[in-house]
Amino acid sequence: MEDRAAVLEVNSRFYNALSNQDLEAMSSVWSHEPWVRCVHPGWDLLQGWPSIRQSWKRIFKNTEYLKIHVTNLSVHIEHDFAWVICTENITSAHAADYQTATALATNIFRKVQGQWLLGHHHASPVSVGDPVQASESIQ
Amino acid sequence: MEDRAAVLEVNSRFYNALSNQDLEAMSSVWSHEPWVRCVHPGWDLLQGWPSIRQSWKRIFKNTEYLKIHVTNLSVHIEHDFAWVICTENITSAHAADYQTATALATNIFRKVQGQWLLGHHHASPVSVGDPVQASESIQ
Repeated sequence: MEDRAAVLEVNSRFYNALSNQDLEAMSSVWSHEPWVRCVHPGWDLLQGWPSIRQSWKRIFKNTEYLKIHVTNLSVHIEHDFAWVICTENITSAHAADYQTATALATNIFRKVQGQWLLGHHHASPVSVGDPVQASESIQ
Repeated sequence: MEDRAAVLEVNSRFYNALSNQDLEAMSSVWSHEPWVRCVHPGWDLLQGWPSIRQSWKRIFKNTEYLKIHVTNLSVHIEHDFAWVICTENITSAHAADYQTATALATNIFRKVQGQWLLGHHHASPVSVGDPVQASESIQ
């Protein structure tokens, strides 16, 4: 598979694993190398696959319903390293309380033995409205 | 200069430009290629150097005092691309109101003609306390 298509495919598999709350599928998408990192919206940095796996397990345990619709994808590839920037349109339910939210994600992938794997996921909340107008600051 | 040292040096120059609110120094740190992207904490995605430059200009205009102390740095280098993950400990003042905040940043650099340049900056707020315990969700 051509690299761009392969990166988009693994990025889709990541969001499918998330929407399906499928820990096994999530595990197969991620690199398990020691350098892997993850930032969930508002969370502190998670380092290493055991911590990241545990975070998904806890998220899935506390989520009744989760659907992520990905838009505004951009893909950058250099050798065996790629990153995807995208908008996550999230619908979720906790205790039958449905919520929608928007997040921005930077996903960094590494090609290992011909297979692209996720090594860093950084997702952050986007403020409602026009945050540039609203804050014009760095906090 | 060895790549790791060179990447750390340009990462430091980025945070110095930010702390000094120096738009010219900021411009010299960034790549001006069309693919560059930036996410400030809570802001939507900015695409291309003109938009990113404008955002820094507006941030600096609205900030009386800004100091960023960077901790927990990790550096990853793959050929001519590198990324740095770090914690930004921010002290800032707007209208003489001093605030502190913590953000997590993913900074992606590209080596162009022997010079490392910033191509993507993604910074997001970290919740106070233990956000894993607090939210255990993806929003």
